[in-house]
Amino acid sequence: MKGYFITFEGIEGAGKSTQAKKLYDFLLKNGKNAVLTREPGGTQLGKKIREILLTPSEEIFPPTAELMLYEADRNIHIHNVIKPHLEKGYYVICDRFTDSTLAYQGYARGLKIDLIKNLNFIASENIEPDITFLIDIPVEEGFKRIQRYRKKDRIEQEHTDFHKKLREGFLKIAEEKKNRIVVIDGLKDENIIFNEILEILKKRDII
Amino acid sequence: MKGYFITFEGIEGAGKSTQAKKLYDFLLKNGKNAVLTREPGGTQLGKKIREILLTPSEEIFPPTAELMLYEADRNIHIHNVIKPHLEKGYYVICDRFTDSTLAYQGYARGLKIDLIKNLNFIASENIEPDITFLIDIPVEEGFKRIQRYRKKDRIEQEHTDFHKKLREGFLKIAEEKKNRIVVIDGLKDENIIFNEILEILKKRDII
Repeated sequence: MKGYFITFEGIEGAGKSTQAKKLYDFLLKNGKNAVLTREPGGTQLGKKIREILLTPSEEIFPPTAELMLYEADRNIHIHNVIKPHLEKGYYVICDRFTDSTLAYQGYARGLKIDLIKNLNFIASENIEPDITFLIDIPVEEGFKRIQRYRKKDRIEQEHTDFHKKLREGFLKIAEEKKNRIVVIDGLKDENIIFNEILEILKKRDII
Repeated sequence: MKGYFITFEGIEGAGKSTQAKKLYDFLLKNGKNAVLTREPGGTQLGKKIREILLTPSEEIFPPTAELMLYEADRNIHIHNVIKPHLEKGYYVICDRFTDSTLAYQGYARGLKIDLIKNLNFIASENIEPDITFLIDIPVEEGFKRIQRYRKKDRIEQEHTDFHKKLREGFLKIAEEKKNRIVVIDGLKDENIIFNEILEILKKRDII
């Protein structure tokens, strides 16, 4: 692919979306072609899937079904947004990708890791990020931040134990994929974090 | 499971839904506990998934994403409707199930048969129908029937070649699963067909 695929990962409240947006603005200001997108919901079809995933439901919502909806969203996203932009040489900046599925549905919900890796591979058509920033913060800090500014959605209502497994899951994935995933201390000031991100991207000849 | 799981399969216009409804009414009239359901869309969450699947879209809708949405719908359906009713001893009559996914996404759209069988197994939690009626009609007859009574949806707009592969796919699956799947000639009068279905169910001690 001619472009660069950069993903941001982390638990709720970590500051992923803020950093993704800062990078996108920086690239545009420097005359680069860039697209800022997210999962789930990076397409029109995906927005409908996202709504199903995040709306509280009276019915049983089994983890396996949740996994399949995330993967459907991803496959639509890959075909309509990620692949075509990478082929045209764009920077594609994505808020959450396959690592989130592995952390949430695998490490936190307990679905089989191999099943998720297999579906991630199929749904993403084996397109992997060039680099992933895992913004890491303690669970309690994440809770504090999200309570400050919005009503909890279905996922955010899960208990603390779930979010602890989630954070540990992300760190385990980062350990496994050391070359691709860079762990960033999300407790630092957001401008300091952003400068760290820029330095790493420069060092790797991505920007 | 204490109940019986009976599915109806076939191409559009074959008369599946008519026969499923007739069987449901018959069972109720004979004092049995029965539920009539369908895929996709047998639950509230599933109805939202069904809408995504059947609404024409401007975006690319890849077959893999389609498959994953059908399987998500199935997994939700299994947990909320099929399994709990079978456990309570109900007759569960379902309009389309795993065989449709194999015929549509596999034989007609060309996705890998093994992948679909694997996802069918996972989504259905290995719950198989006790008996399946495949109502078989020629493709041209199906077209004639559906044009008569409704506007085509996204799936029905597919060309004739697709529907031919679909019908052949269904017949291939029936050949593979001879014990479970009974092929019924859908060109016969609907009352004659229904009597055949009742005879078969009696012979197998299901009713």
